[in-house]
Amino acid sequence: MKRRTFVRTLPAATILAGTASGSYLKAAVYPDLQPIILPPPEKEGGKSVLAALQERKTTRNISPKPVPAQVLSNLLWAAFGVNRGLASFNKPGRTAPSASNSQEIDLYVSLSEGVYLYEAVPHRLTPVVAGDFRGRAGRGRAATAPVNIFYVADLTRYDLGPDQPDRAIGDPEVQKSYYYTDTGFIAQNVYLFAASQGLAAWFHNCDKENTVREFNLKHTQRILFTQTVGYPE
Amino acid sequence: MKRRTFVRTLPAATILAGTASGSYLKAAVYPDLQPIILPPPEKEGGKSVLAALQERKTTRNISPKPVPAQVLSNLLWAAFGVNRGLASFNKPGRTAPSASNSQEIDLYVSLSEGVYLYEAVPHRLTPVVAGDFRGRAGRGRAATAPVNIFYVADLTRYDLGPDQPDRAIGDPEVQKSYYYTDTGFIAQNVYLFAASQGLAAWFHNCDKENTVREFNLKHTQRILFTQTVGYPE
Repeated sequence: MKRRTFVRTLPAATILAGTASGSYLKAAVYPDLQPIILPPPEKEGGKSVLAALQERKTTRNISPKPVPAQVLSNLLWAAFGVNRGLASFNKPGRTAPSASNSQEIDLYVSLSEGVYLYEAVPHRLTPVVAGDFRGRAGRGRAATAPVNIFYVADLTRYDLGPDQPDRAIGDPEVQKSYYYTDTGFIAQNVYLFAASQGLAAWFHNCDKENTVREFNLKHTQRILFTQTVGYPE
Repeated sequence: MKRRTFVRTLPAATILAGTASGSYLKAAVYPDLQPIILPPPEKEGGKSVLAALQERKTTRNISPKPVPAQVLSNLLWAAFGVNRGLASFNKPGRTAPSASNSQEIDLYVSLSEGVYLYEAVPHRLTPVVAGDFRGRAGRGRAATAPVNIFYVADLTRYDLGPDQPDRAIGDPEVQKSYYYTDTGFIAQNVYLFAASQGLAAWFHNCDKENTVREFNLKHTQRILFTQTVGYPE
């Protein structure tokens, strides 16, 4: 927590205020949303697992106060970062499991200035669309909290080729059971990270209809839930 | 971890060996499976959340070595224990969230001598059926590992009465999205607890057909997945 570089101090990002209808803002007003190179995540500090479990709860009253870049880095690494070398199917191991290590859940991170895709290997946020889409996370404090993580499943990740040992993985009902469970794994990492650091977290439904278009999702992607994170009010 | 009372030292429980076809064993051989009063869970010790995230992985090579009662107590409390006073809908808060605090996931805990239901408020394991059903968790080390947690959803818990704010919760597809996600929350608690204590954990598919009958599940219950826990080999 030493660095106090705030994420909102990006060029062209800090001028945004209010809500947005994305497709207009995307091309016209914020053409130059930049990737965010996150600082290396911290692997020490904060409460123990048992102590964090004792503190684990849903907190809906979340302040609009921005989170420092280091906290955002730690949060996203905790959620679904790379924590070791190659695991099954020659993919790097992550902090949360996934069905056949398909790593089918993508984190779309909505900050005040735009929506970014979290890329775990380079530990980077890549721009998806400029504009303030936090209101798509829901009403109340979700729309003003500094971070909203949208959980999006990419069904093409289940196609693991001839070495796939799970014959049922092509079944849409089985896929559903996997991608929702895999979302829960990641989201509980967020809850426990938040509990260990005195942050607030709230997992909930979100606007699925508009976000499919606004986030430029493919027909093979499913938007599932949102988790709002920030400082408790 | 001071106490070394092993769970397997229950009366009538230690004589079991091999696999079982449950309905026979249930009534005939082990009529006297007793409730297990778990020792109070420890809330201190083990790695930090960040350090446990660094160690988080799936470990399938799990020893048959039994776990002490204190470890089983800590494990189940970590998974889905009570961690605070009354939360939404006047239910005690738990270490994992659930849709509208429905607390719809039950943990059926398969030990060598029988299957038990984890009751979080009294922090107790109540007998469900005597016999060794660990083989229903799957092949390999799952069948011999000391603990298998079967995740079972009870759909009747979604009926929260007229104060239920989630109008979609009666929709079977919505329910599915909730109970799988809620399973992931609990199972990641288990993964991080295991990582914090040097235990091994493995979340996977299980035998759903036989267990519905053998565990005496109601038609409103859904058996979802199993998580195997023990010491790494």
